[in-house]
Amino acid sequence: MTVTDEFIEANKSYQEGFNGPLPLPPARKVAVVACMDARLDPAKVLGINEGDAHVIRNAGGVVTEDALRSLAISQRLLGTEEIVLVHHTDCGMVTFTDDGFRQDIEKDTGIRPTWAAEAFPDAAEDVKQGINRIRSNPFIPHKDNIRGFVFDVATGSIDEV
Amino acid sequence: MTVTDEFIEANKSYQEGFNGPLPLPPARKVAVVACMDARLDPAKVLGINEGDAHVIRNAGGVVTEDALRSLAISQRLLGTEEIVLVHHTDCGMVTFTDDGFRQDIEKDTGIRPTWAAEAFPDAAEDVKQGINRIRSNPFIPHKDNIRGFVFDVATGSIDEV
Repeated sequence: MTVTDEFIEANKSYQEGFNGPLPLPPARKVAVVACMDARLDPAKVLGINEGDAHVIRNAGGVVTEDALRSLAISQRLLGTEEIVLVHHTDCGMVTFTDDGFRQDIEKDTGIRPTWAAEAFPDAAEDVKQGINRIRSNPFIPHKDNIRGFVFDVATGSIDEV
Repeated sequence: MTVTDEFIEANKSYQEGFNGPLPLPPARKVAVVACMDARLDPAKVLGINEGDAHVIRNAGGVVTEDALRSLAISQRLLGTEEIVLVHHTDCGMVTFTDDGFRQDIEKDTGIRPTWAAEAFPDAAEDVKQGINRIRSNPFIPHKDNIRGFVFDVATGSIDEV
């Protein structure tokens, strides 16, 4: 039995208590960009209920071009106006470098990725980088409320950058 | 008071019941790629607890280059071996076209994005597209367990593609 099979089983309980459907546009008009880290559940950490908010996640919670694509769709088509970035302590992204990661892949596969791995040495600094990337992007209409946090995996707190 | 301020308040309750820290590598060795949709909470839908799984999310739950970057980091550096894709019914991505979205942005801002919006007409077909993109990608080492689902926002069920 794979984890996927366990997910299918778990979903049966979820269906029993389910109340839907909710409206498509996020009720609280906010989009969260967070790390994919297993210890970070943005809904629990920030008190987000179903229907409230878009949640965008990737390795690092980095404001990549794809995160900007998602934010542009979120704001332009689905009415969000506020953005919250969430990085965290003890992040895997500080344990390697782009050069090392790309070279290891090239050694293993013979092919070097055309993309940056987006490793960073400091979570708070990368939150600032993310805010700068959003501010400089021409496709995001609402930039008045962009704030960033570092989630502490030891205490559960979020510390504003 | 912004929604972000409400998130900060909600986080105080979360801290009170917090037990940490958990280990960095996902305990269940699985990565989920899901849509950013507000009505889809992957942790609740699939029974994922803190520490269990990487969760990658973007507009559509599309297997973009950035999702592949995240999956490569997830598998190569943090030990995941299984991948689950989750799209959903009533998705915003079926309500527009790439051409229309890009033209609207060009009209508003004078600049046309260099990226595809990744709109799709059918959620199940785009899950298949995502599986194909992962299978053909040279940087993802573990491809034996890749499965995809469409979450039903009206019933809470997940239907395997």
